[in-house]
Amino acid sequence: MNFPSKLIENAVNEVSKLPGIGKKTALRLVLHLLKRDEEDTQQLTESLINLRTKIQYCQRCHNISDTSVCSICISPVRDQGVVCVVQDTRDVLAIENTSQYNGLYHVLGGVIAPIEGIGPNDLNIESLTERLKNEEVKEIILALPATMEGDTTAFYLTKKLKQFPQVKITTIARGIPVGGELEYADEITLGRSIASRVVYE
Amino acid sequence: MNFPSKLIENAVNEVSKLPGIGKKTALRLVLHLLKRDEEDTQQLTESLINLRTKIQYCQRCHNISDTSVCSICISPVRDQGVVCVVQDTRDVLAIENTSQYNGLYHVLGGVIAPIEGIGPNDLNIESLTERLKNEEVKEIILALPATMEGDTTAFYLTKKLKQFPQVKITTIARGIPVGGELEYADEITLGRSIASRVVYE
Repeated sequence: MNFPSKLIENAVNEVSKLPGIGKKTALRLVLHLLKRDEEDTQQLTESLINLRTKIQYCQRCHNISDTSVCSICISPVRDQGVVCVVQDTRDVLAIENTSQYNGLYHVLGGVIAPIEGIGPNDLNIESLTERLKNEEVKEIILALPATMEGDTTAFYLTKKLKQFPQVKITTIARGIPVGGELEYADEITLGRSIASRVVYE
Repeated sequence: MNFPSKLIENAVNEVSKLPGIGKKTALRLVLHLLKRDEEDTQQLTESLINLRTKIQYCQRCHNISDTSVCSICISPVRDQGVVCVVQDTRDVLAIENTSQYNGLYHVLGGVIAPIEGIGPNDLNIESLTERLKNEEVKEIILALPATMEGDTTAFYLTKKLKQFPQVKITTIARGIPVGGELEYADEITLGRSIASRVVYE
């Protein structure tokens, strides 16, 4: 694409570096900003800069936070005995939105993916074992993605956490999603959902 | 969605004001920026602020430009006798990318849309008639969208430009797109493409 202006070209190039945004979408977004007030662009860029420079990660659970310990960890109504291990902040938000969970979290910051060069040492696993040593944790819930990398990470963690026999390790249920038709489920999901069937109540 | 941090919430709110970007996509983009270097966010926001504060519009054709007259208008190899009238800058880019056009442009800045409150006076029509008075234009090509608003604008312009009988007014061809099957074309397009058939050469 030939741009009539270097300023547009730069902006489009920068915006299209974002995931899932190509040159055409970037151009649409950039032209939208040009049509709006200058203040809108100011607010957008300020919010991004503020986020990037001021954000902190919770010292305890590594979740994104405005303070050194996040609002979930500090909350007195949360069950301090249950820790849900997730891949990243998005998963925390997803689980929080269900309103079905009242324990704490531990954000790994990724999953073990040898192909991408991510090993156990790149994740917040050391600090998880530290927590188990120092806190009175009764249960660890592994809420990792249902992918090969997620399974590998879960396997690694269960082996690693064997040194804490007092901690029960559970994993979120895998199976047919609510509203899902059996015939459209893939064989692995369907097979697993039969193998890990539960008593009907 | 409940956000763990006000900073994230602000950034997500601002990013989701962009067209076609909802809260979930905004969150994905914002978390992506958090994972990358601070410099990346700096460059992105700088390019947007630079664009918004420094951009100019060509005095002659109203296209986006880094200078007071744009590179197309100033080019000595362009045919100064043909002016292509388009809705906005994106259309200029689209036509430029075809490499099939060597004339000048005139960017209206929109089309007549009474429902949205956009009348002829909100568009760069006055400056188009000025150009026809002062420049030696032989042909005006109307390259407006094939919508009701586009047709209304084309109709308005042809009436308005009748005061310049020396200027030939043409419009881009409407018909079956290249690679298109007749059976999948809508009736209006197919009907028009029969009505405005051309000699087979």
